[in-house]
Amino acid sequence: MMRIEHHVCFGGAQEVWQHHSDVLGCDMRIGVYLPPQAKDGPCPVLYWLSGLTCTEQNFITKAGAQRYAAEHGIILVTPDTSPRGDDVADAEGYDIGKGAGFYVNATEAPWSAHYRMYDYVVDELPALIEASFPANDARAISGHSMGGHGALVIALRNPTRYRSVSAFSPIVAPSQVPWGEKAFTTYLGADRDAWALYDATALVSSELNERLPLLIEQGRDDEFLANQLKPELLQLAAEAQGQPITLNLRPGYDHSYYFIASFIGEHIVYHARAMKA
Amino acid sequence: MMRIEHHVCFGGAQEVWQHHSDVLGCDMRIGVYLPPQAKDGPCPVLYWLSGLTCTEQNFITKAGAQRYAAEHGIILVTPDTSPRGDDVADAEGYDIGKGAGFYVNATEAPWSAHYRMYDYVVDELPALIEASFPANDARAISGHSMGGHGALVIALRNPTRYRSVSAFSPIVAPSQVPWGEKAFTTYLGADRDAWALYDATALVSSELNERLPLLIEQGRDDEFLANQLKPELLQLAAEAQGQPITLNLRPGYDHSYYFIASFIGEHIVYHARAMKA
Repeated sequence: MMRIEHHVCFGGAQEVWQHHSDVLGCDMRIGVYLPPQAKDGPCPVLYWLSGLTCTEQNFITKAGAQRYAAEHGIILVTPDTSPRGDDVADAEGYDIGKGAGFYVNATEAPWSAHYRMYDYVVDELPALIEASFPANDARAISGHSMGGHGALVIALRNPTRYRSVSAFSPIVAPSQVPWGEKAFTTYLGADRDAWALYDATALVSSELNERLPLLIEQGRDDEFLANQLKPELLQLAAEAQGQPITLNLRPGYDHSYYFIASFIGEHIVYHARAMKA
Repeated sequence: MMRIEHHVCFGGAQEVWQHHSDVLGCDMRIGVYLPPQAKDGPCPVLYWLSGLTCTEQNFITKAGAQRYAAEHGIILVTPDTSPRGDDVADAEGYDIGKGAGFYVNATEAPWSAHYRMYDYVVDELPALIEASFPANDARAISGHSMGGHGALVIALRNPTRYRSVSAFSPIVAPSQVPWGEKAFTTYLGADRDAWALYDATALVSSELNERLPLLIEQGRDDEFLANQLKPELLQLAAEAQGQPITLNLRPGYDHSYYFIASFIGEHIVYHARAMKA
């Protein structure tokens, strides 16, 4: 682990670390915000998964979340959105390859060599964080767009590993929208049965032993709402299964970080309550 | 005036507008945050001047100021840092030319053709804002680094046009540090007498009819503190003249937006009080 950025921020520190990921087979960067409370003992951790084209930088520079994390004593961990480096496969366009890992374990060549973001986020990253920082084992997960999809899928499949989950503008049914169909065909192949493990709406429709409540924040004027996000698909599936869900539709708000910034404080309060309960 | 961005944010709207500037002789972009209170009537305006390399985007995406502006009913106006366009002179390096207007009216060729950021910020911009948005005539001004220099100089020279002034990590004595010596030689020529009108420390040392209190926020671990910023020069000059000044030196903080984000809320409260008094 090598620290490559350190900025005092709201009495704590926003840092960026680089480490070699065995799961991904490449070097990865992680944003880590340590609140002032971390000087006095272990704190709970909120993992944030970013959307298409993002790196570890977008959330830490644009969301304004450090203020709330400092207030509530929460560590914020923001991984990159794909494996990186010259050895890693890439493609033209913003929605496949680097910056577009979709939080899956790819099974198709050439992607399967490095694109294992699901295992990275679920296993390797928390182990690394809990071994390297004053973090306790209370975890929450959230994210935006492609990262909202990642957060929902990871929490639905690992409900005992997280105390709470939320998502901003998530791709809730990737198997049914263009972004997801393209990514899953590329990374997982044509067999749609393999896709269901990475589709929040499909997971909610299946028999789950444990169901974490889902909190979803969605702008009504989001330019991707009707074609790529379709939160009503998840809501209908949840209601059919008795899956607790809160879908906040916010008039006027779009897909940008201005939307995330406006509501991240409420989500951090939500996760802080769950992690400190 | 053409609106090129509109994002609902904290119940108000972060917008970006483009207009032709007669003073600068080019098209310019401006960030305008309209708080929710602007729907009900005119609001006071805080002008923010950014630092070297910045555009109108840096402050609006990174400072997290909209939350506080929404709370206190303040319009935030963030101009670009230089004239722009293919016709505008430029230079190699980040500290002269585009993105580095230094808030002066250049007198040296080729810069004098467009580089008149002082007149733009003092006269043309407020007239445009007050004619185009629900803004009343209560104005405050702040900025960062080169923009902190601009805010101090503009407020010291126009104390009746602003209710309050503050600065983050400002270049307080440009005539005495490398950034300022290079910029002033380039834009204003070798005669140092012409520089004094754009040097906050020199202005404070002169006979001023009216003195707005100066509020300065400075990180103690700022990488430019000892060579380019030197706030103690302004503090000594102010104390010699009875100029009210508050210099907050913050241990650990650096020159980045993580520092600005940590204290912009306190500055917005300060300006809101002055503008609503």
